[in-house]
Amino acid sequence: MAMKFKPKIGIGLIGSGFMGRCHANAFTAVSGLFDLPGLPVKIILADATGEIAQKGARTLGFPRFTSDWRVLIDDPAVDIVAITAPNIYHEPMALAAIAAGKTVYCEKPLSITAASALKMTQAAEAAGVVTMVGFNFLRNPMVRMARELIVANDIGKITGFRGRHAENYMCSPNVPHSFRTDPQGGGAITDLGSHIISMARYLLGPISRTNAISETIHRTRPVHLGSVDRAPVLVDDMTHALLEFESGVKGSIEANWSATGRTMDLSFEVTGTKGAIQFSQERMNELLVYSGLGGFRRIEAGPSHPPYGNFCPAVGHHLGFNDLKIIEVAQLIETHVAGGTCFSDFREAYEVQKVIEAMQLSASDREGALIAI
Amino acid sequence: MAMKFKPKIGIGLIGSGFMGRCHANAFTAVSGLFDLPGLPVKIILADATGEIAQKGARTLGFPRFTSDWRVLIDDPAVDIVAITAPNIYHEPMALAAIAAGKTVYCEKPLSITAASALKMTQAAEAAGVVTMVGFNFLRNPMVRMARELIVANDIGKITGFRGRHAENYMCSPNVPHSFRTDPQGGGAITDLGSHIISMARYLLGPISRTNAISETIHRTRPVHLGSVDRAPVLVDDMTHALLEFESGVKGSIEANWSATGRTMDLSFEVTGTKGAIQFSQERMNELLVYSGLGGFRRIEAGPSHPPYGNFCPAVGHHLGFNDLKIIEVAQLIETHVAGGTCFSDFREAYEVQKVIEAMQLSASDREGALIAI
Amino acid sequence: MAMKFKPKIGIGLIGSGFMGRCHANAFTAVSGLFDLPGLPVKIILADATGEIAQKGARTLGFPRFTSDWRVLIDDPAVDIVAITAPNIYHEPMALAAIAAGKTVYCEKPLSITAASALKMTQAAEAAGVVTMVGFNFLRNPMVRMARELIVANDIGKITGFRGRHAENYMCSPNVPHSFRTDPQGGGAITDLGSHIISMARYLLGPISRTNAISETIHRTRPVHLGSVDRAPVLVDDMTHALLEFESGVKGSIEANWSATGRTMDLSFEVTGTKGAIQFSQERMNELLVYSGLGGFRRIEAGPSHPPYGNFCPAVGHHLGFNDLKIIEVAQLIETHVAGGTCFSDFREAYEVQKVIEAMQLSASDREGALIAI
Amino acid sequence: MAMKFKPKIGIGLIGSGFMGRCHANAFTAVSGLFDLPGLPVKIILADATGEIAQKGARTLGFPRFTSDWRVLIDDPAVDIVAITAPNIYHEPMALAAIAAGKTVYCEKPLSITAASALKMTQAAEAAGVVTMVGFNFLRNPMVRMARELIVANDIGKITGFRGRHAENYMCSPNVPHSFRTDPQGGGAITDLGSHIISMARYLLGPISRTNAISETIHRTRPVHLGSVDRAPVLVDDMTHALLEFESGVKGSIEANWSATGRTMDLSFEVTGTKGAIQFSQERMNELLVYSGLGGFRRIEAGPSHPPYGNFCPAVGHHLGFNDLKIIEVAQLIETHVAGGTCFSDFREAYEVQKVIEAMQLSASDREGALIAI
Repeated sequence: MAMKFKPKIGIGLIGSGFMGRCHANAFTAVSGLFDLPGLPVKIILADATGEIAQKGARTLGFPRFTSDWRVLIDDPAVDIVAITAPNIYHEPMALAAIAAGKTVYCEKPLSITAASALKMTQAAEAAGVVTMVGFNFLRNPMVRMARELIVANDIGKITGFRGRHAENYMCSPNVPHSFRTDPQGGGAITDLGSHIISMARYLLGPISRTNAISETIHRTRPVHLGSVDRAPVLVDDMTHALLEFESGVKGSIEANWSATGRTMDLSFEVTGTKGAIQFSQERMNELLVYSGLGGFRRIEAGPSHPPYGNFCPAVGHHLGFNDLKIIEVAQLIETHVAGGTCFSDFREAYEVQKVIEAMQLSASDREGALIAI
Repeated sequence: MAMKFKPKIGIGLIGSGFMGRCHANAFTAVSGLFDLPGLPVKIILADATGEIAQKGARTLGFPRFTSDWRVLIDDPAVDIVAITAPNIYHEPMALAAIAAGKTVYCEKPLSITAASALKMTQAAEAAGVVTMVGFNFLRNPMVRMARELIVANDIGKITGFRGRHAENYMCSPNVPHSFRTDPQGGGAITDLGSHIISMARYLLGPISRTNAISETIHRTRPVHLGSVDRAPVLVDDMTHALLEFESGVKGSIEANWSATGRTMDLSFEVTGTKGAIQFSQERMNELLVYSGLGGFRRIEAGPSHPPYGNFCPAVGHHLGFNDLKIIEVAQLIETHVAGGTCFSDFREAYEVQKVIEAMQLSASDREGALIAI
Repeated sequence: MAMKFKPKIGIGLIGSGFMGRCHANAFTAVSGLFDLPGLPVKIILADATGEIAQKGARTLGFPRFTSDWRVLIDDPAVDIVAITAPNIYHEPMALAAIAAGKTVYCEKPLSITAASALKMTQAAEAAGVVTMVGFNFLRNPMVRMARELIVANDIGKITGFRGRHAENYMCSPNVPHSFRTDPQGGGAITDLGSHIISMARYLLGPISRTNAISETIHRTRPVHLGSVDRAPVLVDDMTHALLEFESGVKGSIEANWSATGRTMDLSFEVTGTKGAIQFSQERMNELLVYSGLGGFRRIEAGPSHPPYGNFCPAVGHHLGFNDLKIIEVAQLIETHVAGGTCFSDFREAYEVQKVIEAMQLSASDREGALIAI
Repeated sequence: MAMKFKPKIGIGLIGSGFMGRCHANAFTAVSGLFDLPGLPVKIILADATGEIAQKGARTLGFPRFTSDWRVLIDDPAVDIVAITAPNIYHEPMALAAIAAGKTVYCEKPLSITAASALKMTQAAEAAGVVTMVGFNFLRNPMVRMARELIVANDIGKITGFRGRHAENYMCSPNVPHSFRTDPQGGGAITDLGSHIISMARYLLGPISRTNAISETIHRTRPVHLGSVDRAPVLVDDMTHALLEFESGVKGSIEANWSATGRTMDLSFEVTGTKGAIQFSQERMNELLVYSGLGGFRRIEAGPSHPPYGNFCPAVGHHLGFNDLKIIEVAQLIETHVAGGTCFSDFREAYEVQKVIEAMQLSASDREGALIAI
């Protein structure tokens, strides 16, 4: 079915910062790459002020704008509400959108606490609306391949997991306070740990227990950029945690936003009785697979790893970060039309947040208590 | 300036195959990523038959279509003619577009012979129209960084060059004949050699002499896919060539489309008196740079490598192949509005073709004659 | 001073298995590579029976042999007693050698329990004899370089540690019971964990607390090779542990002898406020160092990393595993002549064993208790 | 058979510099690692003066010394003459040793011209003595594995070869003249090209034609270290060459001793119809093998790659450069006792030298003539 005869799906976007722009571009590009059951059409953009919203609408190609996100949610032309506002607003926006019967596409983390995330999840499930949370790294075809190898028993019974998400954007003691360092919903374990925890769950299922140890490397930070006034930091810069999955598999993860020299080490090694898999987002188009004698093979992304073929016709051409967001949006559109749930919905995001809070609880206890999840 | 108030630039696209789709998607996405002086608008798509053209137009989002590319060129709403038709048609299409005063964006190779490419170049220069040829790999920010390091003398006086473009898509003796194996304009040295030659010229300037040696690994191929009838192959599967640049720098290249195990080894090592640079498109977001004691550094693509920052806000997020085409289209739009020439225009593509023909001539001579270019 | 005029140092070797052979070859080769203050001379070899000892002596170049290791220790020509016997014998042999005033060179682990290791340590310190334990991986010039960078503050204040020793030699459920699976002194955490713990201590100093989680992947193993009778396994196949160093630095390690696909991933990443260092024994001649802008540099082993220059005159030539043992033996000879202590002596090995036992204790507690060391 | 009851084989070593020391250490170590049919015993060392020879003998463990290499050759206790003297002396020394019926072990290059090498080869063959030339990089078990995969047709019919030996030791214009820059027997193509040419022949057999292009990057060098007087350089710093093997396989090589940033890039890629092999001496314990779907596998050196098992009992332990020399010496001892020829004997070294001279001839011709070998 050709693009122009497809049913239109109205998009309302809240927020026009980096992630808002990323959403807008993905909604623009997706129809040229995926043969979807509907055509996303940009309807309205909301942001904090009329001025910001107007500028965002013009830059990102929305015909209308508003400074009141409730107007956007109530707009009858809007079918999908995409939320890229600060984390603190996720709950009221999502609850309003759910109440209006809209599909809700929310950036991670779902909310600032697990309790809030649960409330949102229960509301969505009661209303029967489609939800999706933007764990974009899970959309990588090579990560999908890793999961399929595991599920198909290609590497045998799983015996261990070692994961990490390490970046360097908070290395400097002069990076100021922001939502990232807010005691409610902040810290490396929330900002980056959420990615490796969602990855671990995607690959190996629910996590049932954890012990964690955290460090706040820079104990104070400027109250705002360039300020000489510094305020204490109450969240972690780095957390190491032991894990046990419900399946009994054990392992560990690290979340670290002060990892000097590391830009995107969202990485894992999954070990099984017959094989093993290594991956790092630093080389997102490669999967290292061991499946018998002779060393790890470097598998390059290609058309045999869906939906890579929607982007490039042959192996050796690479996907980029923005392509992951396009894949995510394609899944969202498909689920919006078909109904049901997709990975990862609000409930999944709530489960991730429960693990984060268990790690925070364990790390805050000098006795290093084991926490059941 | 916001997207919706920019002057519109009408796009006419000839061809709706893989590369046509790639063009269409790039024209769609570019405005959300680059703040350009004009807004590309899809006007009309031409393809071999009305049926194909209609399907292409609907799928790729063009409001009109035609089976007669001359209609497209003559359409007053069309400002840029994008040519992704078979190589044999490049000359008549480009000449007609030039005659109509349109900007011409043509896929590589520019034409099937250097003589034809020269004719097209001279016509464009006489008419003063903007031209661009789709050497997309040159748009990679890491390749641009390599060139800037060279130009800035960061690795000193250049002393050597070693390049290669090796892929595996013709490995099987059962890949049939196609335009790729056409004695006019075919062979690995044309299909892949053009990329590494254009890369060498981009980095180090004009090439003045060459000796080459070629091999046709599979001497016959099926006349079409699945056919038991086989016809002789008259082009190379692999060429190795010695080079001398006008600057006096010497080196070698390889072009190989039967390189078992290789998917995109478009790679080079440039050596200078003070440093060296390594790159392979197999890891297109990395540049290995040596600049003094202590080993090669792995530089990851990031906002300090323009125009990466138009796509992603931080290092560690990656560009993909399709992003290179978007960068190319951005340069095209900028040049279309500003006038003048951009890298790589028709003349540049003609120079590449001259090098290819010199290599073919040398390789066809059992005495391995040195050929001046 | 030339080799032949140096004072002779008599070597008595207990054990002629793999590690005994490794010792013998290192004592043979060391004089040609290092200008040492004494010339090691092979005196006598002891093994379990006269037949084995005789065969070992002939193969390894010892003029005399014995089936009674006490004879070896009492031999007045023996200055250094090298112990490569099963772990269970380390204590009585070392105590006897200490009592006889000999220098003692013992393979790791020092003994089967920390209590036994402490007894040996106290005896050696009371007697004032030189001791050394064979933590050969610490002798790698690139590991030494890592330590020197840390000590010199080149990577700033240390903020995190992530270590691992993963191999695959116990992957198969049909690898039988042996000293490795003995509840006293066995398990992956002892066999491999000792290496990464000693490495962590070498790089960052004493460890003060730990939590650990362990898994026994194969719950039974054959009682001996090829047997159909299987007995329960009471030691770990894999342990993940959280660490805190006395300095306050936090991190984690993994020890795993069932790591399918891994042959020698004795690896670490040390992160500091100004830089970071990565190493894996899988590429033992390389150190990846980040020290500012521009990505990790791959430093190759060379003469600027002592004592590499004793082996090879230029960078690019590599050291091998056996060379590490030669470096260890060179340090042993130097300390034997000069007196005093060398890294790693009995006390250091005892400290490693204390950490291992703390991890075992934590892992055995389903509450995952934090253990102070 | 135990070491001490084996027949003794007397070693006479000419030269006590780096390579002499390397020989001496290999003769010392080999008996502890290989079960050879004879026991090498150091007899006498010769060097330029009595003083140097005496010092060398003491340091390297030879009981006797001489300043007259003819005395060494005539010594009846000497069975093997090892020549590590400057290249200019190889011919007279080898001819004298051959005349005396001794086994001759000569460092590469065999001599300064192909004509001289042929004379030496013919003399050795007429006398029926065992000869060996020190192409140590060919002794690497991973290179041997590469050859075995090729011979066993594991990667199918060979279709291409790309080789290189690039180092950086002549990068500085202040590295002075030496035997390396002697017009007779010097240049990068001799010093390093000999390694990659011998490697190419080892893997794929005789080379039948070549074209080459050379560059002298530094046109003058100091007459001796630190001198302000500079003399012209008449040899190449870098050569790129096209190759055709007798089998019809085509390819190219580079020899470069001014390759900034490169320490030991003795590397190759061999492509076949069913697979491909990559290797670089910079990671000498790894072979990258492609043999069907799924990317290159990283094979790590281990006991399944003889004679690795003579050095280390398990995969993951590494061989070093000096171990390659020990393997070479083991082959020498075996051939000395068994008679016959070993790879690479004088004739093989002569064949390598013929290829070098053909490349030099082609490169010196501004017409870039094709040279048959």
